[in-house]
Amino acid sequence: MKLESLHDLYLSELRDLYSAEDQIVKALPKMIEKAESTNLRNALKSHLEETRGHVARLEQVFDMHGEAAKKEKCKGMQGILEEGDDMVGKDATAAVRDAAIISACQRVEHYEMAAYGTVRTYAEQMGHERAAAVLQQTLNEETAADEKLTQIARSRVNIQATRTA
Amino acid sequence: MKLESLHDLYLSELRDLYSAEDQIVKALPKMIEKAESTNLRNALKSHLEETRGHVARLEQVFDMHGEAAKKEKCKGMQGILEEGDDMVGKDATAAVRDAAIISACQRVEHYEMAAYGTVRTYAEQMGHERAAAVLQQTLNEETAADEKLTQIARSRVNIQATRTA
Repeated sequence: MKLESLHDLYLSELRDLYSAEDQIVKALPKMIEKAESTNLRNALKSHLEETRGHVARLEQVFDMHGEAAKKEKCKGMQGILEEGDDMVGKDATAAVRDAAIISACQRVEHYEMAAYGTVRTYAEQMGHERAAAVLQQTLNEETAADEKLTQIARSRVNIQATRTA
Repeated sequence: MKLESLHDLYLSELRDLYSAEDQIVKALPKMIEKAESTNLRNALKSHLEETRGHVARLEQVFDMHGEAAKKEKCKGMQGILEEGDDMVGKDATAAVRDAAIISACQRVEHYEMAAYGTVRTYAEQMGHERAAAVLQQTLNEETAADEKLTQIARSRVNIQATRTA
């Protein structure tokens, strides 16, 4: 398919994100299962719920543009999640594994922050104000999830991982 | 290798970043070649120079810890760059391709921001102040590169892409 306009690129990136969110919904339960810290488990559980909401919001945005919600395999997220799976699957002490889970999840969040920032800007530039507002809501939640993970890493998990050194 | 301590995880993540930077040094020239906007080409060229400096800084950090600089294949960056290559390789008008290049590069920058933020924090928590300062320098440059791309996207490239719609 030729990308003739920003609208074509925008749809292509929405499909990429729709695939990314779907991959995250499938990957997060494994991370939650492996996390030792209650604080971390709770943060990931609540982010899994949010992620289901992000899927629904993308469907809403496709609908605003009269498009069926479709996925284009997001290879970026695939690579990030494979790497996370490798890292979290390594033989490690519980505190170090928790630090590795946070690290993997922050790579996920940052990818999404870049991707949502991009489509939000495209939507603004094309005058799709409602779509831009919906995409901004998700971007805010991704940013907040990343900050929450930084707090957990700084407060407890990494300190414990250092002590086992 | 068992990850017994935060130091082990830190080294593993430095090797992942060393691989990521190496992949970026190889991928950026292709992006530069495909970019139409002079502003974008110049920003990418100057970031390629910076990226070579990031490789050198990582070598410096390995050296501070008495470790040989080694790579662990960064699957996250591999996925992001493959996706970027697909996106930028699509049949597109020049303005839309420039927007796609920016989008791909911002995913790269965000991945790196997450990864450098993580190793910088580990270094701080383990009391490696010099290493933390060197990693922070690179983090600042990645953040600045991302902001520069946002400016270019907002100012010129995307607007043109919209006009071709």
